[in-house]
Amino acid sequence: MPARLIDGKTYASKVKEQVTAGVEAFKAKTGTSPGLAVVLVGEDPASKVYVASKARVSGEVGIRSIEHKLPATTSQDDLLQLVRSLNADPEVNGILVQFPVPDQISQQAVIDTIDPVKDVDGLHPLNAGRLASGLDAMVPCTPYGAYLMLKGVREDLSGLKALVVGRSNLVGKPVAQLLLRENCTVTMAHSRTKDLRAEARAADVLVAAIGKPNFVQGDWVKPGALVIDVGINRIPAPEKGEGKTRLVGDVDFAAASDIAGAITPVPGGVGLMTVACLMRNTLIAAHRQAGLPDPAV
Amino acid sequence: MPARLIDGKTYASKVKEQVTAGVEAFKAKTGTSPGLAVVLVGEDPASKVYVASKARVSGEVGIRSIEHKLPATTSQDDLLQLVRSLNADPEVNGILVQFPVPDQISQQAVIDTIDPVKDVDGLHPLNAGRLASGLDAMVPCTPYGAYLMLKGVREDLSGLKALVVGRSNLVGKPVAQLLLRENCTVTMAHSRTKDLRAEARAADVLVAAIGKPNFVQGDWVKPGALVIDVGINRIPAPEKGEGKTRLVGDVDFAAASDIAGAITPVPGGVGLMTVACLMRNTLIAAHRQAGLPDPAV
Ligand SMILES: NC(=O)c1ccc[n+]([C@@H]2O[C@H](COP(=O)([O-])OP(=O)(O)OC[C@H]3O[C@@H](n4cnc5c(N)ncnc54)[C@H](OP(=O)(O)O)[C@@H]3O)[C@@H](O)[C@H]2O)c1
Ligand SMILES: NC(=O)c1ccc[n+]([C@@H]2O[C@H](COP(=O)([O-])OP(=O)(O)OC[C@H]3O[C@@H](n4cnc5c(N)ncnc54)[C@H](OP(=O)(O)O)[C@@H]3O)[C@@H](O)[C@H]2O)c1
Repeated sequence: MPARLIDGKTYASKVKEQVTAGVEAFKAKTGTSPGLAVVLVGEDPASKVYVASKARVSGEVGIRSIEHKLPATTSQDDLLQLVRSLNADPEVNGILVQFPVPDQISQQAVIDTIDPVKDVDGLHPLNAGRLASGLDAMVPCTPYGAYLMLKGVREDLSGLKALVVGRSNLVGKPVAQLLLRENCTVTMAHSRTKDLRAEARAADVLVAAIGKPNFVQGDWVKPGALVIDVGINRIPAPEKGEGKTRLVGDVDFAAASDIAGAITPVPGGVGLMTVACLMRNTLIAAHRQAGLPDPAV
Repeated sequence: MPARLIDGKTYASKVKEQVTAGVEAFKAKTGTSPGLAVVLVGEDPASKVYVASKARVSGEVGIRSIEHKLPATTSQDDLLQLVRSLNADPEVNGILVQFPVPDQISQQAVIDTIDPVKDVDGLHPLNAGRLASGLDAMVPCTPYGAYLMLKGVREDLSGLKALVVGRSNLVGKPVAQLLLRENCTVTMAHSRTKDLRAEARAADVLVAAIGKPNFVQGDWVKPGALVIDVGINRIPAPEKGEGKTRLVGDVDFAAASDIAGAITPVPGGVGLMTVACLMRNTLIAAHRQAGLPDPAV
């Protein structure tokens, strides 16, 4: 039986609708809309696309977008100075510095400088620790998106065996914490894991965040499992013409979708949730900074 | 074949020796010894014993011990005020508030108020997040002790399957992060885990931090596994006389020690490492506050 498709567009639209309503309510209460500052250093083409899409979706949901574009030669001191001024700016509720930053700048120094209450990317260690400790946190956007999709398919995840493949601070680790909070029995796997196939075959919930095209084989998937494919990999697509490429996930979708109970496609899956969840985080951050209770999004 | 016994006394002595040497070197460099402030609120008998043992071991390793004993009626404001003054006091390098605190005081408020660089208990979310993010952190003492014992038995833990039963902020979660950092494939289990026996039987490394006497049965243990029993449970011991009690762990030691490759006893195991690792954390905290590189302990 083919798996149920977990459609990123549907989920992302729902989040954006909720945020739009939340922004309206926030404006009614405070007289102002939440503000998101996005900082881009340099001219990386992929980063430019991401930043443009963040500005566009901000507009759609009613969030004020404040863009800062700095030259690739910007010094670390200058970038940190900008971050500090955004920390201090009451018009700015969320701060996102688009990564990667050029080599002369330490990514960790940037992360550590962002005020944790404005850290809508959720990468500050205080937010990682608050999430791990069961406290309110800013949760990284892609993991939260993956989590919302899982909850949409199956509200009660308690007691399920979950395997998270990949342990980055950006994706794998926060996904594991979110699933643990949902009372899954959570296994964290990575490049040193011995028998990944066996781990995968035992998992009711399988999250792949590896960065290797079609790495998880169809017959690694437990029949009926919920599969969330976070991977976004560009591979050659000669069938589309010479030099053409296409996007695939970390899971062999064609094979896995015959076996899984539900699965996210790539493209059209988790990827669409990231920006929507960024808007959600900005709305939450604005509420916390205004001393209001968290909105229902 | 009976398991190798992982003797807490041997490991704790070694840590204390290293800390003693580290304190000497620190004094030679800075002219002062590290200071540890221990705060006790109320008259809980077990807490009094712990606090006394912390002061005694501080003395043994050359750490200055500063004790604050407050009445059980102390308000949260007064306790937080004391914590803030200890944060500001250059003579104090480590701050430990003995938990539990009386009901009128929020434990989380205390944790959040301690300066993370003086947080020798490692419970501040910033330290939890720094550990999870792969950065320098203050690591909670009991998990670090458990980790040192494992590393002592088997230096290279990479690729081993580890099961951590229990997910408290104090023990289970930091143990899982330490094992992940060692490249184990780590499973986090808890009260909602479905087939704990099967999870345990698959584990090369089994850490029990549950708080239930003899809960992990002998035949749950994989032959040859490394078993770390963090549990400390007091149970009736009528064989010692009416009303007498004794301490047991979370693992059925008698049965498990026939099957495991190595195992910690209770008492005489992990429990002895906690205070030793507290001294180690205080020494490290003193170095960081003095702008010195971390000592080799
Ligand atoms: N908007 C989005 O949807 C979004 C956002 C972020 C990321 N992504 C995608 O998600 C994927 C992962 O991103 P990331 O930032 O987490 O990547 P990352 O930082 O490179 O981490 C990759 C993880 O995969 C593990 N891994 C690598 N090879 C493996 C193997 N052969 N077997 C098992 N595990 C292996 C690595 O293990 P070690 O730790 O042992 O090296 C590491 O933990 C990428 O495809 C990325 O493009 C998508
Ligand atoms: N100095 C030392 O050596 C030292 C220091 C600290 C603690 N300890 C000892 O270590 C033990 C654990 O301490 P803690 O502070 O981590 O305790 P805790 O906060 O009570 O946490 C206990 C954990 O065990 C889990 N658990 C409870 N019943 C279970 C079951 N039937 N099956 C599987 N998991 C179960 C709980 O799951 P849920 O999360 O689902 O409830 C929870 O995560 C205690 O015996 C304590 O005395 C010793």
